[in-house]
Amino acid sequence: MSGASLDFWFDFASTYSYMAAARVRAAAANAKVSVRFRPFLLGPIFKAQGWDTSPFNLYEAKGRYMWRDLERECADLKLPFRKPDPFPQHSLLAARVALVALDHPWGDEFCVSVFRAEFGEGKRIDDPATLAGILEDLRIESSPVLEAAQSDANKPRLRQQTERAQQLGVFGAPTFTTADGELFWGNDRLDQALRWATRA
Amino acid sequence: MSGASLDFWFDFASTYSYMAAARVRAAAANAKVSVRFRPFLLGPIFKAQGWDTSPFNLYEAKGRYMWRDLERECADLKLPFRKPDPFPQHSLLAARVALVALDHPWGDEFCVSVFRAEFGEGKRIDDPATLAGILEDLRIESSPVLEAAQSDANKPRLRQQTERAQQLGVFGAPTFTTADGELFWGNDRLDQALRWATRA
Repeated sequence: MSGASLDFWFDFASTYSYMAAARVRAAAANAKVSVRFRPFLLGPIFKAQGWDTSPFNLYEAKGRYMWRDLERECADLKLPFRKPDPFPQHSLLAARVALVALDHPWGDEFCVSVFRAEFGEGKRIDDPATLAGILEDLRIESSPVLEAAQSDANKPRLRQQTERAQQLGVFGAPTFTTADGELFWGNDRLDQALRWATRA
Repeated sequence: MSGASLDFWFDFASTYSYMAAARVRAAAANAKVSVRFRPFLLGPIFKAQGWDTSPFNLYEAKGRYMWRDLERECADLKLPFRKPDPFPQHSLLAARVALVALDHPWGDEFCVSVFRAEFGEGKRIDDPATLAGILEDLRIESSPVLEAAQSDANKPRLRQQTERAQQLGVFGAPTFTTADGELFWGNDRLDQALRWATRA
């Protein structure tokens, strides 16, 4: 690594974050950029914009398009894709577990696995059994992790991370931010964000 | 041309349509795809979604991001960029003139020139003098074109074109549509749209 770094902001319910999560580690390694996974909640940010659910549910034509676009883009990336039911999934628990996971070397892998379970296998990510299964597949004992995730010590961390995202100007996911304050929104901007991060 | 074709839907007020208009002819020629320029009005489509102006004005963080993103992307494309004042520009007159222009071989060039005047040179596109100047630069006598644009025969054409866009599921601009009914939204999807158009 050259010292270049990028923050990857995502909500587990976010469709385009699925693609970004699947691509970001290889793309960043290629560009010699270190990536920090930063889960947050879109809910409070959408609420501040007057939305009580995903804009893809609120705006019908846009939603219909998004599902078709996702299907095409996943096919190009050879990523499995199934529309989650319900959509959006409730991502609070998964995000809390992810914060605990990201204190460990297997945290990134956990996050990518949650996305794959949700959008590739049609699993519900608000079901603790789904998250426990992912942890066990990573050979991590799940109970202590799930307990730590739901502890009073952990809950404020997610709120703080969401507030930090909002302060940075994040309004959707995925978003990439650089150390010098640039913000790149969308899976479509991953390459630009990596190029920016490696500028002198 | 192989027979492959693509429709390019745009509103002259649309920021990302500026970049698409600047790129589309060379990219399409490269892919051996013929492109049909199809101006329409976003206003009625936004209104149906409950918006009375550009979503970039309604959603502050998104708007701030868009201007920065546009600045970066235009720099990458080596396209001049100035933020229009006011934004969005009133695009009705320019769209009516464009429909007349597009009956002629110089129609595409006219459209690209309108975008450049607006986003590259900071000119007001609701000013007939701007449009007349563009026509004269193309060595076209401007008065008959501007008259035809404002005629009772021409006005319904723009309404019909906007209705057609809405029927196709267009919810923003630029949008690319293929003969087999695929829809691609955004300057970021131009390459995918061209690849789709040349399938089979």
